[in-house]
Amino acid sequence: MLIEEYGEEAFLAELPDMFLAANPVNVGVGDDAAVLAASSEVTVWSTDMLVEDVHFRRQWQSPAELGYKSLAVNLSDIAAMGAVPRVALLSLGLPKGTEVGFLRELCHGFASLARDTGVAIAGGDTTRSASGLVISVTLGGGLAGERAILRRGASAGDRVLVTGFPGRSAAGLKLAEAGDTGFPSLREAFIAPRARLNAGKAAAAAGITAMTDVSDGLASDLRHICAASGTGARIDAAALPVDSKLREAAAGHGWGLEELMLRGGEDYELLMTVPAERAPEAIKSLAALEGVPVTDIGVISGAGDGIILTGADGSERAMPARGFDHFQP
Amino acid sequence: MLIEEYGEEAFLAELPDMFLAANPVNVGVGDDAAVLAASSEVTVWSTDMLVEDVHFRRQWQSPAELGYKSLAVNLSDIAAMGAVPRVALLSLGLPKGTEVGFLRELCHGFASLARDTGVAIAGGDTTRSASGLVISVTLGGGLAGERAILRRGASAGDRVLVTGFPGRSAAGLKLAEAGDTGFPSLREAFIAPRARLNAGKAAAAAGITAMTDVSDGLASDLRHICAASGTGARIDAAALPVDSKLREAAAGHGWGLEELMLRGGEDYELLMTVPAERAPEAIKSLAALEGVPVTDIGVISGAGDGIILTGADGSERAMPARGFDHFQP
Repeated sequence: MLIEEYGEEAFLAELPDMFLAANPVNVGVGDDAAVLAASSEVTVWSTDMLVEDVHFRRQWQSPAELGYKSLAVNLSDIAAMGAVPRVALLSLGLPKGTEVGFLRELCHGFASLARDTGVAIAGGDTTRSASGLVISVTLGGGLAGERAILRRGASAGDRVLVTGFPGRSAAGLKLAEAGDTGFPSLREAFIAPRARLNAGKAAAAAGITAMTDVSDGLASDLRHICAASGTGARIDAAALPVDSKLREAAAGHGWGLEELMLRGGEDYELLMTVPAERAPEAIKSLAALEGVPVTDIGVISGAGDGIILTGADGSERAMPARGFDHFQP
Repeated sequence: MLIEEYGEEAFLAELPDMFLAANPVNVGVGDDAAVLAASSEVTVWSTDMLVEDVHFRRQWQSPAELGYKSLAVNLSDIAAMGAVPRVALLSLGLPKGTEVGFLRELCHGFASLARDTGVAIAGGDTTRSASGLVISVTLGGGLAGERAILRRGASAGDRVLVTGFPGRSAAGLKLAEAGDTGFPSLREAFIAPRARLNAGKAAAAAGITAMTDVSDGLASDLRHICAASGTGARIDAAALPVDSKLREAAAGHGWGLEELMLRGGEDYELLMTVPAERAPEAIKSLAALEGVPVTDIGVISGAGDGIILTGADGSERAMPARGFDHFQP
């Protein structure tokens, strides 16, 4: 049944059961606004908008996977602040002809990840969209440590760490575009990225000085840290962690492996800096918490040094300037 | 210049100056998420999405007016909870061909109303839209009184009050659609609605028991209060406050005056209930705070009574079932 036949109010009436309000939400879906408990200390807020045919195409994933990802990308922003996610608002712009079943599945995918990550869904908005589905999510969290971990905390000499294997999501996107249904782990990295909540939460205690998530591509996101911190960086190309399936897919399709790893977006890995003396312990503890490798890929340098990619042969190149472009012009 | 030539990062770099972060924002635009002061007690959250050609057409208002309205509709939700607005997140989905000048003006209109209402702009998101401008705003506030004023607090015997003159915004929309440039006060009610922040803030102290803003139309929004409270209501048609310009425009165009007043959406007036003995004082104090009349339009009754519109001649009709539809199907 289409949403315009079923009715917005009928659909909204289903949500309170699906979006079980919990602490810290005192008033959830169904009033003019949501009310959190006064003691909630939900002080970290992130928001992201996903647009059909810009960020996703419907044929690439199930509605539940789409709901999952729309929360996951926000979870990643909260993780990248060293915070713990607590409460979400979900807004949907619905084109004419949207199936109620599609919506229900989308909300279930969203709600299921919310439940798994301890996030209460406090409210949102539904409206018509002129064309294409629009999903706008706002996520609030509380600080896990005493301070938020910003992009601006890096100092010369800090080591640069990254979780997991950047480039897999971009490869997953390219596989989807190419209609290649192989490499399920790369598809999953693109369709169902896992926010690094455990590492994010533990980052302050591990001595991390600056942090961001890899959403625009490693090169771009490193640039954000360096610009905010007033530093440069030297990244060791040979140290970049290479996923074996990524290598295989890149070789098979003739894609540039380094290009995918440095400019591929939407990895939602964490890019961090840490004083050199704390790096070994941070790598060990964060890797254990996430169950993925954490890799030392280089060092923060002075601002005058720029952002340099060094080769095993001692060669130096400037880091590529822009992130992977997806659909962006 | 177009945004795709100017660059998203260049535009984002302009925002911190425009969106002066203030208390309670410790970290604003430019990191993965915003961080509020731990003492901020921003516990009431509302979100609204405005979509081009669904909620607005570009030719109807200036970009600054559009920015203004996208914040105003959220201010109204916060007011309707009895809360004070404090911090906003602004997300923009931008179609190809968006002029940077247009964006700058839109952000100025938003920032200017934010400044006037004491709202800090903490962050947001910009992305491409497949077609048409999408504006998603999330607004956080703090409770003004000891409690939020919900829709569910009405009891049989409470008087029903409304601020201002419902129906003016719907008339403003119809004038815009008809290309009638007369009646500037009606146009303004549609293009630049004024959230009733002062009345909302004072509502708890005035003894208001239930409250919502008139966004879907008086009939629909009253239905929301009655459904949430488990009550009916009897509204006196002759008591509905009639704006003289609204009467004039409706007569000139042959529009049904009562239809506009009961089913017209986007008025952003406050619809409230209050124990009968406190009604006279509440009317006086809230009207003085807002500088608009507050009118007693009827009484809350038992659930079994339904929602009835009574005429001066003693006639009774069921309240119209649905709100004004704008562009909605």
